Order: sequence, then structure tokens, then C-alpha cells
Amino acid sequence: MSASTSAPAPGCLPVLGRDVRAPLVTGGDAEYAALDYAASAPALQRVWDDVAAYAPYYGSVHRGAGYLSQLSTELFESSRATVAGFLGCRPDDQVVFTRSTTDSLNLLAAALPPGTEVYVFETEHHAALLPWQHGGSAAGRVTVLPAPGSPGQAVAALDSALAARVGDGPALVCVTGASNVTGELWPVRELTAAAHRHGARLVLDAAQLAPHHPVDVADLGVDWVAFSGHKLYAPFGAGVLAGRADWLRAAPPYLAGGGASRRVLRAAGGGVDVEWQTTAARHEAGSPNVIGAYAIASACRALTEAGFDALVAREQTLVARVLAGLAELPGVRVLSLFGADAARVGVVSFVVDGWSSPHLAAALSAEHGIGVRDGLFCAHPLVRALLGDAGGSAESAACGGAAGDGERPLNAVRVSFGAGTPDEHVDRFLAALGSLVRDGARWPYRTVDGRCVPAAGAEPVAA
Amino acid sequence: MSASTSAPAPGCLPVLGRDVRAPLVTGGDAEYAALDYAASAPALQRVWDDVAAYAPYYGSVHRGAGYLSQLSTELFESSRATVAGFLGCRPDDQVVFTRSTTDSLNLLAAALPPGTEVYVFETEHHAALLPWQHGGSAAGRVTVLPAPGSPGQAVAALDSALAARVGDGPALVCVTGASNVTGELWPVRELTAAAHRHGARLVLDAAQLAPHHPVDVADLGVDWVAFSGHKLYAPFGAGVLAGRADWLRAAPPYLAGGGASRRVLRAAGGGVDVEWQTTAARHEAGSPNVIGAYAIASACRALTEAGFDALVAREQTLVARVLAGLAELPGVRVLSLFGADAARVGVVSFVVDGWSSPHLAAALSAEHGIGVRDGLFCAHPLVRALLGDAGGSAESAACGGAAGDGERPLNAVRVSFGAGTPDEHVDRFLAALGSLVRDGARWPYRTVDGRCVPAAGAEPVAA
Repeated sequence: MSASTSAPAPGCLPVLGRDVRAPLVTGGDAEYAALDYAASAPALQRVWDDVAAYAPYYGSVHRGAGYLSQLSTELFESSRATVAGFLGCRPDDQVVFTRSTTDSLNLLAAALPPGTEVYVFETEHHAALLPWQHGGSAAGRVTVLPAPGSPGQAVAALDSALAARVGDGPALVCVTGASNVTGELWPVRELTAAAHRHGARLVLDAAQLAPHHPVDVADLGVDWVAFSGHKLYAPFGAGVLAGRADWLRAAPPYLAGGGASRRVLRAAGGGVDVEWQTTAARHEAGSPNVIGAYAIASACRALTEAGFDALVAREQTLVARVLAGLAELPGVRVLSLFGADAARVGVVSFVVDGWSSPHLAAALSAEHGIGVRDGLFCAHPLVRALLGDAGGSAESAACGGAAGDGERPLNAVRVSFGAGTPDEHVDRFLAALGSLVRDGARWPYRTVDGRCVPAAGAEPVAA
Repeated sequence: MSASTSAPAPGCLPVLGRDVRAPLVTGGDAEYAALDYAASAPALQRVWDDVAAYAPYYGSVHRGAGYLSQLSTELFESSRATVAGFLGCRPDDQVVFTRSTTDSLNLLAAALPPGTEVYVFETEHHAALLPWQHGGSAAGRVTVLPAPGSPGQAVAALDSALAARVGDGPALVCVTGASNVTGELWPVRELTAAAHRHGARLVLDAAQLAPHHPVDVADLGVDWVAFSGHKLYAPFGAGVLAGRADWLRAAPPYLAGGGASRRVLRAAGGGVDVEWQTTAARHEAGSPNVIGAYAIASACRALTEAGFDALVAREQTLVARVLAGLAELPGVRVLSLFGADAARVGVVSFVVDGWSSPHLAAALSAEHGIGVRDGLFCAHPLVRALLGDAGGSAESAACGGAAGDGERPLNAVRVSFGAGTPDEHVDRFLAALGSLVRDGARWPYRTVDGRCVPAAGAEPVAA
């Protein structure tokens, strides 16, 4: 293993791993093309450099008297301020460091006023779909809205559902900013306005939006936003929930422990009485992940300083290139809720006639050194709706060759990219996919532990 | 900022930050002496090197088809196996990666069979004391046992309490392996035997034990063990809960989201039906902190390869040196539950007659470049019991000079160290403390935001 040292390709930001070569099953190797950004993006070189510079100065935060404890505490709290600035937070918003978007949304679910009605589209990632009906949630009735056919339909469906509410208790809408399956942008501003019109609040799942598009909490009017460091080029185990402080302050602390507790006394009855913090620390019990938080702040600075609008514009050229390339290949169907003209980030899922998706993804990796993802992308109801399949499962996906003629594909392939992706990776992906679709795979594959892998000891398939 | 490059002092393992110099309020600077290991330890150089070597190969785990996804998945799962080996786990134990000990114990609290009776000593860290009566916990009655005066008393008190149980429902004992305040070792093997005698299970809080002493789950017989990476020289946001799989498999998933969910379908009633994982993934929803988990595994390997018994023996010479040095200073009282002969790890708390602890800690930092901690150490009932104070609070601690004669100190100073601590840091600490105790502080201090800091623009106090 060696660190990346080569100059980045023009137009993209330098990331770790840009020199990594992947061994090919057909012999030799190829520069690894990381095209699974929607799952986890490589660290920005800048983020790594910042973490490496800080690491010798790491110290316990908040309660240590030493120089490094003071320095680390300042770094942690200034990271919070950097994230607040990056997100365009209101002055009285809280920024809570969590471990991930999943964690952020579970935190919010546990922090809702008891009985809060929740509205969510079935098209959400499981992290946004499931926390509200989970044991730890304080939510009341959860309304799962069907997949809309357009942004306008989404707003109208939410508006109707909220208009039908009985009573005026607390309500929350949870919606993604950009789909982790189709990459399509959701009408966040309009959905927020609809929520507010009916006295509901809205939390934005920005896991897929924040790495690809500026998010401005105050401008959009959203009440909370959640995202993950590991999708924002800062894979050090931290995430963020930022937004309105009132519900967070009133809620029981997310975890019970040190840091969240200001004062603990033996109670007369034999137990203990606890006075909890009312700042973000209330929901950050335990020693904070200082490096994770600092890495996120470093990524926020790097994206801002690089000019986020320019990064968006460049990514849009890659999106157009991928969509145009896929359109030229026979039998490729791109998954979309909102239609061909929908605005989207660098996340594109598709199926290919006659191919099982695991087989296609395995061949892209093993024969071309290209890393994509296959499956249902932790958004099972959405992918099934898009594939027209009511009950299929990722586990039952076939491998080892072509799906039978006329068979419905059970899952899809996703290609995703971002600020660290050179044009060349996208071009290689299109060329490799074209070659596979036209000529077939050059190697036999088999299923091991539910994954499609090259068959060991086999010979190449004759072209 | 620059990375550490100098050779480590003899006898200790190389850690990051060993070249860092702290500015002194009296002019110049000094090599920083990190003596707050009990809060957070510096990263081992070996851990950092392993993380740095892996970072370019970072990729999405579990569901990606690419080379780096496969490599990262293998690394993550082999890290789990390394941790299991380090802890001496039984073959069917599960190792769950969490964010910290606090998180691990909150996870277990949420995973208890409903109504589980919990027994805990008041002497525990808040992370072990509070989760059981927290909203997310499935526990029933929580019995808080008073501070014992000896290891034998602890066993007897637990035995009596468990003997008085009504019925034979599930019960759990939570106990620390080494106190984060006194450093004293608790009789884990005997407490486990007592728990099992009465049909209860036991979870070991090894946050302070694991970095200082080998832990063997199978040999001790404990049902679960929890610890944090950041105290084990791996400060990358991960922790561990390891132990019996049955309750974890039967419990609702800790967080709701992707990874924990195997299959999600729209339900006939309008919501969604979820089939959850039954492996450790059940409680690891969201993208795992691969770097954090790998860092912990690297630390486990480094401690094992260095010879943990030799590290323990060396640390014991430092403990003896600190205790002997403190005994020579007038007015110093070392905090202890179990008496002067108690076995302990490298964690020593004390108070000094006539000194407020915040003032003393601030002077050690500002005048000598030595980082210790003052306060109640997230173990308020224990520290209050040791100081003979029923209702004091860390917030009310005085700064800015000596406490009045005869005043009861409201909190303590803690010095803590480990495998990365050179002898010289301990010697400097003792010399600095001696100078402060005998001659007083050389600089005036004041309270800012509840912390004791050097008064800006002041002149040194005449000796």
C-alpha cells in the first residue's frame, strides 16, 4: 500500500486512492475507478492532510486542563461552527455531531415530541424510511406516501396528506434532497413550504445532496438537515444533524452518559437524579469523535474554497455524459421517477436487458477495475417500484450469466461519482459497459455468500 | 503542526504527539506531557501508520462490487475477528462496532429482554451508571448499590442484593474493570461468579481496563465487555460491545436503517414490513466506521505484539513511582475506595490541602506543559463519596487561588498514563506538583466559562 502522490486529473479535486490499481481477472491491472460515491466517497486529499496535521495534537476535549485538550476542544467547537456556516444555519440552530445520517435521523426520531405524526415517501432510503416506526422513536402515526411521478405530484401528495390531518399536534416530514437510487433532486423548498403551511416541520436527508450541491438551511427553510461525513469526502465515522434547537433541547438525551450529564446526584429513593445539558452536548454523550468532526469541517472548507458552483457545473457535464452514453447502448434502461428531464446529481441506476445486475457489476470490477454497486441500495420499496416488482429481494438475485429473456430484473446497477472523479473514469465505465453489453463477459462468474465473483481456476470465455 | 518523528523514550510504545511542545505562560515552552490517558490516549504511531497505509484503499463496505469495496469489507470483518481474539471471546460471541463505551452500554441497555433487573454500583462512570434508567432502555428495576470499602465487600454486597431478588426473570450486573477515578481494579471474576450464581449476567465496562490490562472474556466468564478505541490508542470514533449473541439477536435493532435491514416491503396496512439481520450488522445500521474499526484492530495487534504483560509490568513501576512521589508531598490525599494496597492501573486522583483542583490543574498546564484533568470525571456520586461531599458540583468549583483552610474540596485532580508515557513525564509531573505545593503558583488565574485559565496581561506572582 502507498499513499496517493500523483497530480489529480484536471477539473476534479484530489482524493486519496487516485493511484490505486486493481488486479484484473483477465491478467494485469488497471487504475481503480471508484464509481460508488453514493455509498462512500474517497477522502479528499485536503481532508486527509488536515487530519494528518492535527493527529499529533489530538487530546481529550471539554474537560481536560492541558494544552492539547484546550486545542482539541477549540478545534471541535470551531468545526461545529464551520459546519453551521457551510449549511447556512440560522443563528439559534444546533449542530449535533452524530456518527452518520442514519444516526442523525434515529436521533431526531427519538427526540420528537411524543406522538408526532410523521410523513415520509416510500421512495426514501431505509435510513429515512424506518427510524420513525422503530422502538426508539417517539413518533405516533407514520404515513408512508406512494412514489410520486413528478416533483409537482410529490408536493401535491404531501399537501393533501397534511390537509387531511386531524388535530394540530406536532408533525414532521422527512424527505431526501437527492435520491440515492435515481440521483433525482426533490423539490425541497416547495415541500418545506407545504409542510409549514400545515403546521408541520421538515427534516432534509441530505446524505446524497450535500456532497453534490450547496445546501442552505435558512434559505430553503428546512427545520433540520442530516448528512454523513463518509459521503462528503471525510470518512472518519462522523455525521451531522443540524437545525432547530427547541425539540432537541426538550427531548431526553439520545444516549445516557458523560458529557450529556451536567450533574448526577444520588436520589432519595435509591436511584440517581440527573440534570442534562441543554446544548448540542445533550445528544453527544461519550467522548466526541474529534477527528471525525474536524474531517467534516475540513471537507466543508475544501468544497467552499474550490467553488461549489463550479464543482456542480462540472459534475453536471459528467451526468450528461453518462446519460448520453447509456442512451446509446442497446437494452439499457435508466431508472427514473421524474422522467428524462429531471435534474439529478451524479447518481445513476440502470438495468440492462438480458443481464443480471450482480453479474454486470462483478464483470465491471473483475475485468475492468471499475467499482460500482448492484442491489436495491437500501431503498427496497423504491427500487421495486421502479423495476415493477412487488416482492423481489436482493438475496434472490441470480448471478452467473444472463437473465432469461423476458425475466424482470430483481435489482439494478448504480454508478455514482463526484468532485474527485476524473472524466476518464466515466469514459472508461461507458466503454467497458458497451463492451460487456455487446460482447458479453470474458470470464465465468459464480455466487459465493450471495455475491457474484469470478469463478476460480476458470479460463476466459471465448469471445 | 508537524508529525512526530523522534524516537520514543525507552520502555514505552511510540505515540503521536511525542514531539509536541506546549507554550508556557511564564515564557518559552516545554515538551507536552499528556497525562490524561484516562480521558483519551494519543494514537499509537503504529495505529496511525496502519490507518495512513489503508486510507487510499478506503471503499464502501458490504454491498459494493469493486475491488476497494471487497478489500474494505474484508478489512472490516477481519478487524472484528482481531478484536474477538484480543478479548478472548467465545466462538459464538458477537463483536459489534459502536462509537464508544457509552454507545456500547446504551446499545446493551436497549437490547435487554424487557423488564430485566439491573444492578450497578454508585461508583460507576455515568456511561455505566445511567443507560439503564434511560428512555431507550428496556430495563426494569435498577438497583444502585452503595460504594463498597473493599473488593470483598463489593462481592458480598452484590451477592446479597441478587439473593434478595424476587422471581427469576432476566437480570444484569454492570461493573467496571478499573475505576476511571481511582484506577483501582474491581474483582471482575468474583462478581461474575456471584452474578451467575443467581442467574444474572454481567457486562464488564472495560473502558479503563482494556488499555492497561489483558481482558479475557472466556476466562473471566463475563457475558459482555465494552470499551472505546480512543482510550486504546485508536482515536477514530469507534468502540466495541462484544459478548453473548442471544439477547442481541432477539433485541430490536439499535438503529433503524440500511445494513441492519435485510428486506423491506410495503405492508398491506400502508406502512412497511422489515426483516432485520441477525448478525452483528443488526446493531450497526448505516455505513460502518471502517477506519475506526481497523484502528482498534491495529491497536489490539500492537499491544499483543509488544507483549501486554511487559507493558503492564512497566506501567506498574510508573504507578508505584507516582504513589511514592505523592506520598512525599505535604497535604496530598490520594482518592481510594479499596485502600493503599489496592491493585490499580495508571489512573490516580488526588486533592491537595489548600488548593482548588481547577487551579492546580491549570497551573500544571500553563506553567509546566503538563496535561491532567480536574473535576468529577463523569462519576459524580463516586467522587462526592470519596470527598465526603453529598451535593457539591463541578460547576461550583472555585478557581483563582487556594481554597480556604478547612474547606472541603469540591473536585479532584486526576493524572493518568499508559503504554505511551515516558518515565520522564511522570517525573516532571511529580517535580512540578512539588514545586506548586511548596512554593505556590507563579501566575494568577481566573475563571472563564467555568474553566480556570491564566489571567491575561498579568505579571508573574513573586515567589
